[in-house]
Amino acid sequence: MNKKPTSSNTVWHQATVTRLRREKLNNHRGAIIWFTGLSGSGKSTLAHAVEEKLYNRDCRTIVLDGDNVRHGLCGDLGFSDEDRKENIRRIGETAKLFVETGVIVLTAFISPFSADRKQARNYVSHGDFIEVYCQSSIEECEKRDVKGLYKRARDGEIKEFTGITSPYEAPINPELIVNTEELSLEHSVIKVWEYLEKRNLFGT
Amino acid sequence: MNKKPTSSNTVWHQATVTRLRREKLNNHRGAIIWFTGLSGSGKSTLAHAVEEKLYNRDCRTIVLDGDNVRHGLCGDLGFSDEDRKENIRRIGETAKLFVETGVIVLTAFISPFSADRKQARNYVSHGDFIEVYCQSSIEECEKRDVKGLYKRARDGEIKEFTGITSPYEAPINPELIVNTEELSLEHSVIKVWEYLEKRNLFGT
Repeated sequence: MNKKPTSSNTVWHQATVTRLRREKLNNHRGAIIWFTGLSGSGKSTLAHAVEEKLYNRDCRTIVLDGDNVRHGLCGDLGFSDEDRKENIRRIGETAKLFVETGVIVLTAFISPFSADRKQARNYVSHGDFIEVYCQSSIEECEKRDVKGLYKRARDGEIKEFTGITSPYEAPINPELIVNTEELSLEHSVIKVWEYLEKRNLFGT
Repeated sequence: MNKKPTSSNTVWHQATVTRLRREKLNNHRGAIIWFTGLSGSGKSTLAHAVEEKLYNRDCRTIVLDGDNVRHGLCGDLGFSDEDRKENIRRIGETAKLFVETGVIVLTAFISPFSADRKQARNYVSHGDFIEVYCQSSIEECEKRDVKGLYKRARDGEIKEFTGITSPYEAPINPELIVNTEELSLEHSVIKVWEYLEKRNLFGT
């Protein structure tokens, strides 16, 4: 981040507030916690619950999900292969900016393809990316159908729907698996929390 | 931000960490400080110097400039009218995300067109956007020519260059004008700082 001035008389672009200093101020590290899983597997719920717990520990956080990304930064994108790639690219670049400012980014996207998740992982340094697989059977997700999307997919109203007409590639080796079908929300949060502590996210 | 659950048994998308709570934790408000001015007018220098002072007051900040945006989030964009619009749109959407998390965003882009700056202003609420005009004559900027860009523009190496072959529309009614030709960096920072205090950016 630190740019050397080109002349001893001119100070320019002097970025003195580095990631390390920001993390010192925050008293925790910046990182991406990337939740992946079927629609209805509880990604957003879990992300927001973890965020609440992080807030109570004075952590700086943001949740990126369909609500604030698909309607904002990526509002111009559809769901073609090309647009999906661009979607992940922008999320990755934005998440990276937040990580550089020492923020813990929690993302809640289905992100069904391994290649896309790998792409997202590559935006930040090794160790800054924590992939959390919200594991729940399609049957359970469809039974809940909180947003009524599975019904619409079955009725043919949604063309490509993950788990119905489009594949979900489950993570092979994620940092953490949370079985949201079996665990309560409270226990799911604890599981994520214990992992974050193990990874020394807190204290700098 | 707060989504009501659709069923009393299902809690989902429960975004409990609101902007207000983040601002309480930060002990300052989120805002965009939008520096505009000719190439070489000292936008980045001033933005980074203000950021350093903000850091020393425990404020959460980010500087968005060509370095981290044009090479990252907007790396796919050129300088056509359409791309320039999209560039501002993405910067606006990203800045908005930061403001929502209670961060003070300092941007340092030439942003020569009033319409573009107006567009950026509209991404956030009235009062969240502070336009700072770094005022310096083209002669002074060209004399400094810190990056050697003016020479390249005069030599015809850069096609559309603000102030030489492309207009700079000076802000008519910006929140603040800093005459960077006359004021030292130290005094420029003080001027911005006094304005931020007047606007009650600190304390929530």
